[in-house]
Amino acid sequence: MSNDILTAEILSKNLKAISVAEFFEKNRHLLGYENTTKAMLTVVKELVDNSIDACEEAAILPNIRVYVKQSGENKFIIKVEDNGPGIVEDKLPFAFGKLLYGSKFHRLRQSRGTQGIGVSGAILYSQLTSGKPIKITSSIGKKYISNIELMIDVTRNEPHVISSKREKNPEKWHGVKVEMEIEGRYIEKGQSIPEYLKETAIMNPYTKITYFGPNDKVTFPRAVHKLPRRPKEIKPHPYGVELGILRRMVETTKAKNIVSFLKADFSRVGKTSALQMCKLAKINPKRKPRSLDYNDVTRLHKAMQTVKLVSPPTNCLSQLGEETITKGLEKEIKGENFVAITRSPSVYKGRPFAVEVGIAYGGELNPNKTGDLLRFANKVPLLYHQGDCAITEAVKEVDWRRYGLQQSSGSLPTGPLVILVHFASVWVPFTSEGKQAIASYPDITKEVKLALQDAGRKLKKYITGKRRIHEIQMRRNLFERYIPEAAEAISKISDVHKVKIEHGLEKMLKKGLKEVDGEAEEEVELNEEETQKTEEIRSEEES
Amino acid sequence: MSNDILTAEILSKNLKAISVAEFFEKNRHLLGYENTTKAMLTVVKELVDNSIDACEEAAILPNIRVYVKQSGENKFIIKVEDNGPGIVEDKLPFAFGKLLYGSKFHRLRQSRGTQGIGVSGAILYSQLTSGKPIKITSSIGKKYISNIELMIDVTRNEPHVISSKREKNPEKWHGVKVEMEIEGRYIEKGQSIPEYLKETAIMNPYTKITYFGPNDKVTFPRAVHKLPRRPKEIKPHPYGVELGILRRMVETTKAKNIVSFLKADFSRVGKTSALQMCKLAKINPKRKPRSLDYNDVTRLHKAMQTVKLVSPPTNCLSQLGEETITKGLEKEIKGENFVAITRSPSVYKGRPFAVEVGIAYGGELNPNKTGDLLRFANKVPLLYHQGDCAITEAVKEVDWRRYGLQQSSGSLPTGPLVILVHFASVWVPFTSEGKQAIASYPDITKEVKLALQDAGRKLKKYITGKRRIHEIQMRRNLFERYIPEAAEAISKISDVHKVKIEHGLEKMLKKGLKEVDGEAEEEVELNEEETQKTEEIRSEEES
Repeated sequence: MSNDILTAEILSKNLKAISVAEFFEKNRHLLGYENTTKAMLTVVKELVDNSIDACEEAAILPNIRVYVKQSGENKFIIKVEDNGPGIVEDKLPFAFGKLLYGSKFHRLRQSRGTQGIGVSGAILYSQLTSGKPIKITSSIGKKYISNIELMIDVTRNEPHVISSKREKNPEKWHGVKVEMEIEGRYIEKGQSIPEYLKETAIMNPYTKITYFGPNDKVTFPRAVHKLPRRPKEIKPHPYGVELGILRRMVETTKAKNIVSFLKADFSRVGKTSALQMCKLAKINPKRKPRSLDYNDVTRLHKAMQTVKLVSPPTNCLSQLGEETITKGLEKEIKGENFVAITRSPSVYKGRPFAVEVGIAYGGELNPNKTGDLLRFANKVPLLYHQGDCAITEAVKEVDWRRYGLQQSSGSLPTGPLVILVHFASVWVPFTSEGKQAIASYPDITKEVKLALQDAGRKLKKYITGKRRIHEIQMRRNLFERYIPEAAEAISKISDVHKVKIEHGLEKMLKKGLKEVDGEAEEEVELNEEETQKTEEIRSEEES
Repeated sequence: MSNDILTAEILSKNLKAISVAEFFEKNRHLLGYENTTKAMLTVVKELVDNSIDACEEAAILPNIRVYVKQSGENKFIIKVEDNGPGIVEDKLPFAFGKLLYGSKFHRLRQSRGTQGIGVSGAILYSQLTSGKPIKITSSIGKKYISNIELMIDVTRNEPHVISSKREKNPEKWHGVKVEMEIEGRYIEKGQSIPEYLKETAIMNPYTKITYFGPNDKVTFPRAVHKLPRRPKEIKPHPYGVELGILRRMVETTKAKNIVSFLKADFSRVGKTSALQMCKLAKINPKRKPRSLDYNDVTRLHKAMQTVKLVSPPTNCLSQLGEETITKGLEKEIKGENFVAITRSPSVYKGRPFAVEVGIAYGGELNPNKTGDLLRFANKVPLLYHQGDCAITEAVKEVDWRRYGLQQSSGSLPTGPLVILVHFASVWVPFTSEGKQAIASYPDITKEVKLALQDAGRKLKKYITGKRRIHEIQMRRNLFERYIPEAAEAISKISDVHKVKIEHGLEKMLKKGLKEVDGEAEEEVELNEEETQKTEEIRSEEES
């Protein structure tokens, strides 16, 4: 027995805090560093995402340069430069050299990064595999440019500045340049840096990207010369707040009474609804928030879910829009027909999100293979973990045969097509910190399916239209071939001249075609149900 | 321009540290709390895993009680009690109320938990959905029992003790009891608490588990009355150390010179190999570790990978063994044949790991469906994310048709079978903090495949043996039926009495069967290649 007790004390002595940097250094596969090929991509992705985010925040058209240069056996130097607003000098070490540090985590507004882990995770990987500090150059467009060399003190999760110097900035340059050496393996196809940059260019056509790769230089020019609508920060919606969070909000609010707390700290709550909530929860509206006990907060929480409220504002999102999606696809995919759908935003647990879908069809695309799927979250391409993503799940669950495509059950559709899905939200539930797949929340999967079905219906009109025209053309050709013989036979019976009959038959043929074309155009206006019906009737006619 | 500069300063002002508790509160799906069904299971799992770990550390046969009681609409009270060593009072709040806090993170030794996130994550979920503190009772077997009520101060990631009191402990009880209320949804089939406890019982047969569920009480008795071999902590192996880590070790070691540093801080390094490393790296063996610069460390790192060394000790692992696996399966699965394989440990990046496989076949198992797969990591059942797990990948990649089973390409095998795979390691690379799937590191997948093939070969002997006996029986029956007619025909030709010929034929039949049986037994000794050969010859004979 005394042995056990001793052990309890020894065991307890070993208990100690683990820094979040140590945690991710050891579990670096969670951040996307489980192999050297993926690591290369992850580093570039984290740097480029941050650069575009910074430019958009400051309303600057992004101009991004990416350099990848081999520096040894399995060693590469990666450098990314932007023309963003820059970062003030005293925050520079923290913005890069501390995990879980950032400006976007608490904000309800669409942006690429939110975690405050991405870039510092890349630095962690760099110093682990190269043993060297990283170099950062930054200016906010004032008198000087700051240059620092930085490492992360892993056991404390704090930045460790190795060197720091300033240079003059006569041209008032602003932006950030980051350079690091890493262990990597470079590829150019598939889940690669060029593919990531290409998909980024499709989804961010207002961004100019110049890529100086190990083998050649590629430029993705700007296709749109205007930034997308800037998303606005919103407050939490009462329907999305959880009991534990409400309890914390009540304790830390600056509001002096419950009514002003509800009005000031939530979106879509006016005086009337606030009073209604207090009444339902049996709480005096003039009470100080801090005075609420556990039972009060629980009743208030319930009341907040009950009172009828307008959905949260959706200007916190920045969708691309159908036109821009079509343009992006047309620029990079060699199809012959392009459709796009931007759904109006939905709300999940008080958090707005919107789904957009684009489909490229036909042309030079291979008709005999499974369609390609391009997944995006807040305009960032997702290249890994396709099988584990809510978007993929939704694509597989849609019955694509209804839209004129082939599909084995539970698979992606087959045909000459590329499907693009963009999930835009103030909060993206990634399956891991590596941010390569979206977790299967039922509300998300459902909304993605609806968007895919909308796009499928648009595509179907093109496919069935194309197919009918093809069938009619075949019948016409067949009939045309027999016109002389038919005319001769009719001429013999009716005693009308053969040539006249031939002309008559040709005229009929043309008129008939026109009628069929008109019918096809009308059909465009039909909604899903009616199309379905038409289809059923048609298949009855055929049998 | 001035606008941009202003933005840079405003943006930088918003930069701040995010606590790891805030991070996981918001991204709770990473910990396994994305829906209420899974959340119930995750809470029980974290508590039970911790309890068994604590008992094993203190060499106590675990006795675990699990209570699940409905307390409201979608609300449940979960309580887990163990007979472990307990936790000393002053560490109690930290062990439960602080994320990334624990004793197992830096240790190279097999254990269930390592992250220091599990239980505190459960508390985070509990206070978020119930708004209430959790209750902990603990004693290390001394004079008193400690009772505390605890919440986590999320913005600081620190424990917040709500109440604390002591009671007398006349019976010197030791152990821990944890009780919390959560939002949940209770199910009893599939990915459920009962299934998790059943699989835990299979894999930890020295553990007694009593489950007081909402509907009934279930007891999983102890099948083995001895604890498994206790794994020993090891030091890192030179082959597994990364440049960045080596640099840190050099800076923080207590050793006075390089040779003693290499000998003391690594496993399998003696004086000779240490001197060899120094020579290869062109470093004076008497230099102080701290005096090494970047280039020295880089050369030393390279030299450490070059010198020939024995593999790391593998007593840091605690496999179950073939006998225990077979017993565990026999206890819970209604098959008729059981095989098990425990592979000798392998090393990945200096970290030892071992794979064990068990297969239950036939009996009451359904022959017309895909076999069930039970996945375990360090004796913990993995119930979610099967599709995303290295174990599943390996099972699909094995060609099961070679072992007498049916399989569509790229799928799990079909037949009356249950496949159990146990991955035991000092470090399990889970795909997320929720610890439900193992990341696809090629070395791991390869070793799992080898173990499955070993087990497949064992199983094949049984299946083919069974199949041959069946075929022979069929032929024998057929022949037997024609013996009287054949005897009569022969009798007519040869003039020998019919009955005598009949007896002769029956004797031949029996003798022939015996010979065939003998042959089958011999075959058991054949290795894979030879079996393959025999098979090829047989199929040639058949055609």
